[in-house]
Amino acid sequence: MNLRLPIVAALLATFAGGPLAADPLRDRAKGLFEVIPTTPPPLRGAPASPEKLALGKMLYFDTRISENHDISCSTCHNLAMGGVDGRSSSVGHTGQLGGRKVLTVLNAVFNKAQFWDGRAEDLESQVTMSVMAFPSALLKSRGGPVIPSAELTKATKDHAVAQLKGIPGYVEAFGKAFPGEGDPITYDNVAKAIAAFESTLITPGAPFDLWLLGDDAALSDTQKLGLSLFIEKGCADCHNGINIGGGQFARFGSMQSPGTDVLPSDDWGRFAITRDVADKYVFKVPSLRNITLTAPYFHNGHEWSLRQAVSVMGAAQLGNKLTDSEIDRIVEFLESLTGKQPEIVLPILPPRVGSTPRPAQ
Amino acid sequence: MNLRLPIVAALLATFAGGPLAADPLRDRAKGLFEVIPTTPPPLRGAPASPEKLALGKMLYFDTRISENHDISCSTCHNLAMGGVDGRSSSVGHTGQLGGRKVLTVLNAVFNKAQFWDGRAEDLESQVTMSVMAFPSALLKSRGGPVIPSAELTKATKDHAVAQLKGIPGYVEAFGKAFPGEGDPITYDNVAKAIAAFESTLITPGAPFDLWLLGDDAALSDTQKLGLSLFIEKGCADCHNGINIGGGQFARFGSMQSPGTDVLPSDDWGRFAITRDVADKYVFKVPSLRNITLTAPYFHNGHEWSLRQAVSVMGAAQLGNKLTDSEIDRIVEFLESLTGKQPEIVLPILPPRVGSTPRPAQ
Repeated sequence: MNLRLPIVAALLATFAGGPLAADPLRDRAKGLFEVIPTTPPPLRGAPASPEKLALGKMLYFDTRISENHDISCSTCHNLAMGGVDGRSSSVGHTGQLGGRKVLTVLNAVFNKAQFWDGRAEDLESQVTMSVMAFPSALLKSRGGPVIPSAELTKATKDHAVAQLKGIPGYVEAFGKAFPGEGDPITYDNVAKAIAAFESTLITPGAPFDLWLLGDDAALSDTQKLGLSLFIEKGCADCHNGINIGGGQFARFGSMQSPGTDVLPSDDWGRFAITRDVADKYVFKVPSLRNITLTAPYFHNGHEWSLRQAVSVMGAAQLGNKLTDSEIDRIVEFLESLTGKQPEIVLPILPPRVGSTPRPAQ
Repeated sequence: MNLRLPIVAALLATFAGGPLAADPLRDRAKGLFEVIPTTPPPLRGAPASPEKLALGKMLYFDTRISENHDISCSTCHNLAMGGVDGRSSSVGHTGQLGGRKVLTVLNAVFNKAQFWDGRAEDLESQVTMSVMAFPSALLKSRGGPVIPSAELTKATKDHAVAQLKGIPGYVEAFGKAFPGEGDPITYDNVAKAIAAFESTLITPGAPFDLWLLGDDAALSDTQKLGLSLFIEKGCADCHNGINIGGGQFARFGSMQSPGTDVLPSDDWGRFAITRDVADKYVFKVPSLRNITLTAPYFHNGHEWSLRQAVSVMGAAQLGNKLTDSEIDRIVEFLESLTGKQPEIVLPILPPRVGSTPRPAQ
């Protein structure tokens, strides 16, 4: 802890005694965080073609890959609302509620793993698992605690592929996106195209990033104090890297249980994936990018106030009762993490024809 | 009927013997149809301000005006899919299914009335009735046949207004859209703003419109024959005007019952609104603009094939069994009614804050 104290001291000296030549807070922050780039990273080393990105965008918005033609990626990962749906649990197939709060798709490409339990290693796997509801079936058969997944539960590979093959505009679009493949409409290619589009959903230009890059005025004095506290108190021990989170797993309640409202006893987190008792109540540390847009908070979406979420984190993860003033400063810092939202022109989806399979219900 | 024959004769002469100086088919068509303008008509005489249009677009895409924060206008009136959801009945509050097939919002500003039964005189009333589910409650209390309305059923005025007042970005946006009003966040203003946005959702530039304006090559020869048949057989007696429909009411099955699959006996159409027995099974004649994008067809969405829908119409409304060749030509003509879809940049919705009311469920 004592390594952090000089930063606050230096920052306070800056305010008290005029500008310093160096900025130790920025130096320290640069060692902990990374700026979101202005162009998205290529997936698996190769940039996606414009045709693949256009196809992925269409699929992202197309409800027809769900069995009842009523859910798409964008239903829960709403790009008008920070890449989430603003609910504690999302509405899936036939109105079922998901067991966990939806995570934002924004900047998800930078996460080490996807889902709260990290069961998908990348966006492509996440797409496949969402649509196939794989883990729910898997876990039921193993007799462990069930992770209810209501994403696109019954939208099987077969349904989605048959639907897309029945729409002439998609036959053309898959041919262009996957040139040279004899049978390009496969579920693997659906996942590849959607993942390629999702990898473009990044939010550069947050005030914090501008400040990291050298713009002193991009953060207010209070926000700089909040950043110091964020580092000092230990928040940045887990919430660091390019996504200020998303890079590691941590046990929720490592210092003190937040109570069963916030951490229900029937969701064991990563344990359900690894079967390692050390993973009980372990979850992915979520990204704090765009956190002001993605309420409610925590894996079960129990907390609607960002102030209260910060307070719970201080106690549960750091064993530290933060003061109101500390919470205010940290929240003001977190407000500086909202970047420029992707500008999305709604795709015009190719129409069905008489022979296209109908929705199940 | 004999008034129409010379058109086909003249058209055939054109194909057989080279171009004629005049085009009697176009002249006739100009008397029946109107071109969609390239700029939307102002609502009630006054063009909407950019601020009101921007607000209306946000509200159109915002699920938070529904009680469970899971349905917005765009859920069923999906602008990626021709302004509809591609289902026979739409999914509403808590998964309830609507009693009728959704009508497109595209070009709806040009309709004489809104809904299949015309119960709303304009877009503003339509918005209010959708959100309030007014007719369902009304009709139940009158003891008549129920028109199930699953649009935004439980999203009451009070919920929507409280939600919007709890979001600082909306407080600002309503202030700008309705300057000088002391309390601008009212349900009437919600409807006004959404209706203003919806009035911009028009689709100019359809091949048929280009042809009406003088571009001979915009329609194929088969499409011109299809147009002749469309007039000749009597389709244009009801499907005419700027929306090629949307301008009058007609009894479904006026010549011959299409059967209870297509015309279920528990939905009496406009009768439920007027209580006039002459209105039993009377519905608004739907617009045929963008008809290739808006399957399934008819008020209960029973018919998925446009060819079959044309065949049913010929028998039920015209007492005329159309031949396969006639149906093909008419369908090819109908394909020329798809215009340029509105380019919609997804709005970025203002975020909730800690004190904003939560979704009901």
